Amino acid sequence: MIYFDHAASSFPKPEAVSAAVAKAINDFGANPGRGGHKLSRQAGEVIDEARKALQTMFDAPKKEKVLFTNNATYALNQIIQGVPFAPGDHIIMTVYEHNSVSRPVQRLKKEKNIEVSVIAPDTHDGWVQEVKNHLRTDTRLVIVTHGSNVTGDIIPIREIGQLLKDHPAWFAVDAAQTAGVLPISMKEDHIDLLACAGHKGLLGPQGTGALLVSEQVSLTPIVTGGTGTNSEAIEQPEEWPYGYESGTLNTPGIAGLLKGVEAVNEQGYERISSHEEGLAKYLVSELKEISALEVIHPLQAGTRLGVVSVKTDPLNSHEIAMILDEHYDIACRAGLHCSPLVHDYLGTTENGLLRFSFGLYNTMNEIDLLITALKEISEHMME
Amino acid sequence: MIYFDHAASSFPKPEAVSAAVAKAINDFGANPGRGGHKLSRQAGEVIDEARKALQTMFDAPKKEKVLFTNNATYALNQIIQGVPFAPGDHIIMTVYEHNSVSRPVQRLKKEKNIEVSVIAPDTHDGWVQEVKNHLRTDTRLVIVTHGSNVTGDIIPIREIGQLLKDHPAWFAVDAAQTAGVLPISMKEDHIDLLACAGHKGLLGPQGTGALLVSEQVSLTPIVTGGTGTNSEAIEQPEEWPYGYESGTLNTPGIAGLLKGVEAVNEQGYERISSHEEGLAKYLVSELKEISALEVIHPLQAGTRLGVVSVKTDPLNSHEIAMILDEHYDIACRAGLHCSPLVHDYLGTTENGLLRFSFGLYNTMNEIDLLITALKEISEHMME
Repeated sequence: MIYFDHAASSFPKPEAVSAAVAKAINDFGANPGRGGHKLSRQAGEVIDEARKALQTMFDAPKKEKVLFTNNATYALNQIIQGVPFAPGDHIIMTVYEHNSVSRPVQRLKKEKNIEVSVIAPDTHDGWVQEVKNHLRTDTRLVIVTHGSNVTGDIIPIREIGQLLKDHPAWFAVDAAQTAGVLPISMKEDHIDLLACAGHKGLLGPQGTGALLVSEQVSLTPIVTGGTGTNSEAIEQPEEWPYGYESGTLNTPGIAGLLKGVEAVNEQGYERISSHEEGLAKYLVSELKEISALEVIHPLQAGTRLGVVSVKTDPLNSHEIAMILDEHYDIACRAGLHCSPLVHDYLGTTENGLLRFSFGLYNTMNEIDLLITALKEISEHMME
Repeated sequence: MIYFDHAASSFPKPEAVSAAVAKAINDFGANPGRGGHKLSRQAGEVIDEARKALQTMFDAPKKEKVLFTNNATYALNQIIQGVPFAPGDHIIMTVYEHNSVSRPVQRLKKEKNIEVSVIAPDTHDGWVQEVKNHLRTDTRLVIVTHGSNVTGDIIPIREIGQLLKDHPAWFAVDAAQTAGVLPISMKEDHIDLLACAGHKGLLGPQGTGALLVSEQVSLTPIVTGGTGTNSEAIEQPEEWPYGYESGTLNTPGIAGLLKGVEAVNEQGYERISSHEEGLAKYLVSELKEISALEVIHPLQAGTRLGVVSVKTDPLNSHEIAMILDEHYDIACRAGLHCSPLVHDYLGTTENGLLRFSFGLYNTMNEIDLLITALKEISEHMME
């Protein structure tokens, strides 16, 4: 099987991941930090170690403000629902945002009368300029996906952070596609809120994600309940991280995520991103030979993520994905990829795109097999 | 090690649980239901099977309205935040509610001006009568914990459901302590909303929970985002279950939960609840000999959960828990157990209680060892 659906979940994982998950279930499946017994402390130590690992990886100011979530969607909702907006406040977001950003923002727009600017530049340099153009004194949040799950575009977060560092707006980054692939420094990039998926580039299991919060940022928790601290208080305690992690954490998942993060650290960003980008660039160059398939190019000429989307009109993208799966054992993803804004922008809403997304363990040889398959399919279908 | 902290998380799990989790990570770690490739379908099939298993276990009206959550806290928040309350509406809850109910209710009270009645009867029969006494025409939600995580009391949900079945109020049950231990039928008990932890009586891994919803109930999802369906819609689609499960699900955890549910089904409720109750009753009878420890008795004379809490005044409950852990390798839990209302009711807020909670794999022999330990500790401490 050839797996080109890493933008959804990375697969396979490092062997240590499932081993660590199983060990956590079998050896110390108690509730972390909710009591003093040995198993509970053992669970608490793994959680703490994972918090530190994420803090280090993303150069986050405080370990206590590294929150575990069940996925990036929850982290993004915690940002968008948690910022203390006043009615009429302004948000800037990009045309590359996933529904996990655009739908909570849409709700905010309706319920709190928030004004929203969606930026969509024509060139890579346009991102910073567009933020600048739309920035207002009442802009409260600028939320930007670091890497597009459709085009493979990388948005220059450092430059945007630089622009915003003296502005009262909080800077939030959706790193669902880039955590574990590209270097991110909350301090250097002036990021206030960083949302990550645990099960993509960080190589952890599904059911994990994280939200990292800068020192000055205060949020209203989405979910309230038991925090293991201040049990007697009827109000949710404003305590990091516990006040934002109500309910029993996914300790086994987090133990697996820690192993994923360690595997990323062993490889290093340069090796991972260069590898994935290399696969993408090779595929893009070979696709030139298939006239039926038109590659969507990211705005920047240089670096890109290991994500390649292809326009298949007049052929049906879902049909090609099905043939790839059934006849060639190649897994990819057709459709809108939960990111309708960018499809609207690209004019690809009706037929969607055929997306190939790469990971650490994919090979050039697999790209060759894909190209052969795509040639055969398009020739056959164009007949 | 003797583990008496099952009310927090059950431990150990059936062997099949971690094996199924590891298998899901290693063999089909793709996103379920978001695309057509084989791994994705395989993940989707496990999720579907687990949904069916929960539907069957709780006699739920619709498989599509069985939602997976990361814990019971999220499920309870989804209930309390999701019910379309009008300002001034009325809620009935019990004094046995966990902070995962009382804190979201408190927020609702402040933010939506909801009126709340907290019922606290003196006798077991009082529960139904108290609901009846407090029921108003504008009561919108009656939320009741099925079993207390502090006293081991079982609240007669069937009788309450019977009382409410012709009233417009929705009936919500927090089955965190009882799912997998006591039989629950949404249809027969007239339950509209049922919240479960996956990692307690259901024997699944941490990071899992469920919310089961009756046919007539409609909720506002807490979290919005990618649903894998209707990607082009800017509004969250009102579609069960996908509109309520935004973001990547914890497929490995759910695969493990399925094995936990199967293990419960193999044992059967009678065997499990009788076993756990038997351990509790034996402990209670033996504790009579230790004058320093006063058992908190549940309101009913008959059935109880495998949860026994003990007043240790003037001895410190945390200190006893620590000695049990360090010197006897017995894990239990001291304090308020995230349920301050009941401690307030019992007058045990200051010192908390020492709680022992039992599971499927505990034995009478372990209870004997606990009793010996408690005798030694109390004699030593009373000297």
